[in-house]
Amino acid sequence: MSDKRIYLDHNASAPLREPALKAVVDALGAVGNASSVHGEGRKARRLVERARQQVAALAGARPEHVVFTSGATEAATTLLTPDWVMGRGSLHFSKVYVCAADHPCVLGGGHFAAEHVQQLPVDASGVIDLKALETCLQKHDREAGLPLVAVHLANNETGVLQPVEDISTICRGHAATLVVDAVQAAGRISLDPAMRCADFLILSSHKIGGSQGAGAIIGQSDLMMPRPLIRGGGQEKGHRAGTENVAAIAGFGAAAEAALADLVRMEQMAVLRDKVEDALLRLFPDAQIHGSKAPRLPNTSFFTVPGVKAETVQIAFDLEGFALSAGSACSSGKVGQSHVLKAMGADAQTGAIRVSLGTSTTSAEIDEFIGALERFAQRRNAKENAA
Amino acid sequence: MSDKRIYLDHNASAPLREPALKAVVDALGAVGNASSVHGEGRKARRLVERARQQVAALAGARPEHVVFTSGATEAATTLLTPDWVMGRGSLHFSKVYVCAADHPCVLGGGHFAAEHVQQLPVDASGVIDLKALETCLQKHDREAGLPLVAVHLANNETGVLQPVEDISTICRGHAATLVVDAVQAAGRISLDPAMRCADFLILSSHKIGGSQGAGAIIGQSDLMMPRPLIRGGGQEKGHRAGTENVAAIAGFGAAAEAALADLVRMEQMAVLRDKVEDALLRLFPDAQIHGSKAPRLPNTSFFTVPGVKAETVQIAFDLEGFALSAGSACSSGKVGQSHVLKAMGADAQTGAIRVSLGTSTTSAEIDEFIGALERFAQRRNAKENAA
Repeated sequence: MSDKRIYLDHNASAPLREPALKAVVDALGAVGNASSVHGEGRKARRLVERARQQVAALAGARPEHVVFTSGATEAATTLLTPDWVMGRGSLHFSKVYVCAADHPCVLGGGHFAAEHVQQLPVDASGVIDLKALETCLQKHDREAGLPLVAVHLANNETGVLQPVEDISTICRGHAATLVVDAVQAAGRISLDPAMRCADFLILSSHKIGGSQGAGAIIGQSDLMMPRPLIRGGGQEKGHRAGTENVAAIAGFGAAAEAALADLVRMEQMAVLRDKVEDALLRLFPDAQIHGSKAPRLPNTSFFTVPGVKAETVQIAFDLEGFALSAGSACSSGKVGQSHVLKAMGADAQTGAIRVSLGTSTTSAEIDEFIGALERFAQRRNAKENAA
Repeated sequence: MSDKRIYLDHNASAPLREPALKAVVDALGAVGNASSVHGEGRKARRLVERARQQVAALAGARPEHVVFTSGATEAATTLLTPDWVMGRGSLHFSKVYVCAADHPCVLGGGHFAAEHVQQLPVDASGVIDLKALETCLQKHDREAGLPLVAVHLANNETGVLQPVEDISTICRGHAATLVVDAVQAAGRISLDPAMRCADFLILSSHKIGGSQGAGAIIGQSDLMMPRPLIRGGGQEKGHRAGTENVAAIAGFGAAAEAALADLVRMEQMAVLRDKVEDALLRLFPDAQIHGSKAPRLPNTSFFTVPGVKAETVQIAFDLEGFALSAGSACSSGKVGQSHVLKAMGADAQTGAIRVSLGTSTTSAEIDEFIGALERFAQRRNAKENAA
């Protein structure tokens, strides 16, 4: 592994932003349980409440509708449950409709039994089939319970954006509750449109330059909420028990504030992403860029070079000092076949390489990456000519 | 609030130990998702696995039987569920037996329906009624499912220790699975005896001088496990989904190592604790020290001064620069009546003050606290004489 590293795997985990690092370290220096009533506890509480405002601002939501969790997977598992409460009453969801290209924490349907999780197909670009959603909700048996729909806003592998306004219109037409996994979209595009049309958004701190260990559920209101997944004390207004991770939450807040301020710069990252894709197609004319015809995040490129195993590319580039991903990093160390590629009807055997940038990615780093791509292409051509 | 602070609320949240702070900050500087296969990911993975060894060592357990969670409340909620798996088969627990003085995250019974949670009484010292446990397990309807027993090792309010060996003997006699909440015992007494007799221990990082945001389930094996509470990716060998909070886990590991090395020093803290209690009884001869007749942690004192509301004492001392607790800090900012006092048959109206020390607590700090107690006693006497 080279000493000099170029990190192009922001969709797996983004490096800590400077203000987030500062917020985390400051909070670590403070002692205190945010539920304690003494000075130390009140200080911890202030840090949590400040972060709540910062995270709400990123989504254009109200701070009182933000529930902090330990991460997005916990947030998704909390929301994806048949058991909800509305005031003192209970509500029952009988089925959850997910998108075939969703992140595993949504795709699995959380606490719904497998037979009550229905996957909606996507097209070749990875965009959800709206007609299938409409049909499913039409057929939904309301006697059995309410329908829940859960879909990602931006795909973690391809960066492809889902048409959440259209999804929301269909959901409202059938009184379905809509959960939008905005983990990969946060800090990369404005969340305001999604927040206006979703009932709940899911966010993650470490994907926007906060530390790992914090996430959020953001609602339109708190009238209707899932029964708490994690139970014990009355933290987070009773929606999530357990001592608050003050440092991670404070860092999440600072990262959210910085990410919001950085949105325009992030939009401009598309220039660097496109530069990578232009070079790729020049060097490998048969390369396939997944989802490139659909609206996408500005920072993500997901491509296959026919005949070249993605895992091999990933390892070769790692040795040269580049951190890339061959698929998503959602399970322990193993690179399985991409369910996203499969859902798009693409060949998942060869796999695909994901390059994902952050606003800290420099033009010089991209030039170095393109240089490495060139060397890789030369080696490949030499090998082919020798054969 | 005074500038100079003396923190005597270690049972709510302990200040970060130096090596833990270093480990957290170092890990924050490293980028990477511990599931990524590139260099950054592998580095994160190494930090997690090192911490797993350190945490296992604190409990005298095997690293491969440690499952990291976001904290003890999540660990308890994960374990307290009717749905378990054994290999590919499923197991059903029909009832959970908890101790009336358990922490709320155990007392509530997690994901068991309220009617399947049975509380076992404690005596006036707060020690569980072993006969009641025996009777309950004798009566347990095994046709309905297996029995689960969950009890704390050390009480968070009183520091009173439960006779886990005896509890374990009874559980084994009835093939009940035993979960021991060792959150307050960890780093204060050796966990080896509890680990030998419990099926599962629960630990928390921030109670032993790690950061908030990490906890663990430690098993005797991983043959039989609860169905995962948090679902998505395959992290933690499939037992707990979600990107690992590498920094908090690394800090947890470092804190566990330091806590283990500090066990003898912690035992000696009883001298300072006893000094507080001697002064208390000298100044307030009618003061009641809860659980003082039972085996207790060396760092905790929980007392009531008749006629003096604990909340008032807590606020008065906070203004003088001392962080004390009036009950536990497990729900958002509110000080409710202590269910532990109630379970012990004590008057919970007046409440009680908890003083909890750490190995960082100095003799000088205790002298200052005793000085403040003296001033408090003088003011009270002056008031009584004036009346």
